[in-house]
Amino acid sequence: MKLDPTIENAIRTFMEGHIPFNEVLGIRIVSLGEGEARLEIPFRESLIGDPLRPAIHGGVISSLIDTCGGAAVFTQFDDIGDRTSTVDLRIDYLRPGGKDTLIADGKVVRAGNKVAVVDVVVFHPGQAERPIATGKGVYNVRRARD
Amino acid sequence: MKLDPTIENAIRTFMEGHIPFNEVLGIRIVSLGEGEARLEIPFRESLIGDPLRPAIHGGVISSLIDTCGGAAVFTQFDDIGDRTSTVDLRIDYLRPGGKDTLIADGKVVRAGNKVAVVDVVVFHPGQAERPIATGKGVYNVRRARD
Amino acid sequence: MKLDPTIENAIRTFMEGHIPFNEVLGIRIVSLGEGEARLEIPFRESLIGDPLRPAIHGGVISSLIDTCGGAAVFTQFDDIGDRTSTVDLRIDYLRPGGKDTLIADGKVVRAGNKVAVVDVVVFHPGQAERPIATGKGVYNVRRARD
Amino acid sequence: MKLDPTIENAIRTFMEGHIPFNEVLGIRIVSLGEGEARLEIPFRESLIGDPLRPAIHGGVISSLIDTCGGAAVFTQFDDIGDRTSTVDLRIDYLRPGGKDTLIADGKVVRAGNKVAVVDVVVFHPGQAERPIATGKGVYNVRRARD
Repeated sequence: MKLDPTIENAIRTFMEGHIPFNEVLGIRIVSLGEGEARLEIPFRESLIGDPLRPAIHGGVISSLIDTCGGAAVFTQFDDIGDRTSTVDLRIDYLRPGGKDTLIADGKVVRAGNKVAVVDVVVFHPGQAERPIATGKGVYNVRRARD
Repeated sequence: MKLDPTIENAIRTFMEGHIPFNEVLGIRIVSLGEGEARLEIPFRESLIGDPLRPAIHGGVISSLIDTCGGAAVFTQFDDIGDRTSTVDLRIDYLRPGGKDTLIADGKVVRAGNKVAVVDVVVFHPGQAERPIATGKGVYNVRRARD
Repeated sequence: MKLDPTIENAIRTFMEGHIPFNEVLGIRIVSLGEGEARLEIPFRESLIGDPLRPAIHGGVISSLIDTCGGAAVFTQFDDIGDRTSTVDLRIDYLRPGGKDTLIADGKVVRAGNKVAVVDVVVFHPGQAERPIATGKGVYNVRRARD
Repeated sequence: MKLDPTIENAIRTFMEGHIPFNEVLGIRIVSLGEGEARLEIPFRESLIGDPLRPAIHGGVISSLIDTCGGAAVFTQFDDIGDRTSTVDLRIDYLRPGGKDTLIADGKVVRAGNKVAVVDVVVFHPGQAERPIATGKGVYNVRRARD
């Protein structure tokens, strides 16, 4: 389900423009839906973690997964004062990330007033069936109205 | 147990100077021992992930944990051709990271010829008893002599 | 892909008849395929963990997930001497399990000579889209021919 | 810190006598303190999971960890109507469990009004320094007074 464009713009502006480390990573929001978020990080040499293969740093992938999960949680908020923070994060690295854009698809699998759980898959463009990593985040939810 | 200084220097040079994303993060190796590694990231504004609190980005912390675990695995290698990569990583975020240096202490808790498991604790200087996050990584081990 | 019936029978006989705690749980193998396993546990009152709701014990679910993942790994073995053991297991409890059969579907998502990773979903019959829990196991693989 | 004996007895009675699957496992509460719980499972042949080694079933260990973590959360409740349930559980299997009692020590590392995190270590008597498994559970907290 598509999000209200005003909400989508608010999330995009906040996450792309007001979070310094997201700017370091070059994270972009590709699309948002109800309980869903697609983010990407275009490739740059500075993201390399293993110069021998070469492969993208696992920390770039974990950062993308954490951020993508948070964005998916944001899409279910209805008050500008609602907040979320990561309780725990788990990542499985399935194959090395190469010199190409990283795409992360996040989907809320448990939506609650206290805790939300999000599944995230990371892959290169056109290769969704060959995931680089999968992740799962548990997020604390603090509703402004509580 | 202290490491041979030649090995310690080799790991330090590789991890601080040849991994681009470690340089982006500003990761430094503080000390290495047999199955143990202490790394740190000095604070910079660009590491902020939540400008409202403010708090360090969870991705900085996950990157540090992943790298610290890998460094601890390296300390148990005895051949320059031995390799490791992260199989899975789990992080619990216990409290926000503030505007101060992040220290990560990693310790190998399972050392094997195929798989190593490392526990990592992240905290601010002088506050080891108030961890910001704890992590656990499972690492693939590929021995050159296999 | 369907398994050779001889291999399927060998796995079934071993897992249903030679593992005492599987008998305590009442685990049955429903079907096996290449890298895939479906197991089930019929409901009995002794599996209850929360008498107030009532709900099936989380330990029944974690046991089923661990066993289902192991069965999926077994399907990729080609030597009677190949062995596997669980390195780590992660479970997300999404909703309580009720007084009904538990079905677990496991699928190998990373097959390696050292380490295999299996995704497992647990649900009640006819309710695959409303999972009770999802799990992920990392398994050590020891090939007899190594 | 020791618990009030009345509360300790209430938790013991509930967990040992009113949870059917805990009785199947033979779980006993050894001791409880503020944010801490020690539980044990005496060995029985029916707990075997790998008859070849032989080793205790991983599901017995995961069940014990889940239950021990829940007991540790209970110690911080102050109202008979407070409830908890497991959100996620992670286990690292470090070495096989042999034909001996399993002891689990659980300690709350994050206590919150919404979410609690508990670390658990499982070992044989007198062998705390050689853990069989370590686990971490995230628990939902529902306060009666909310």
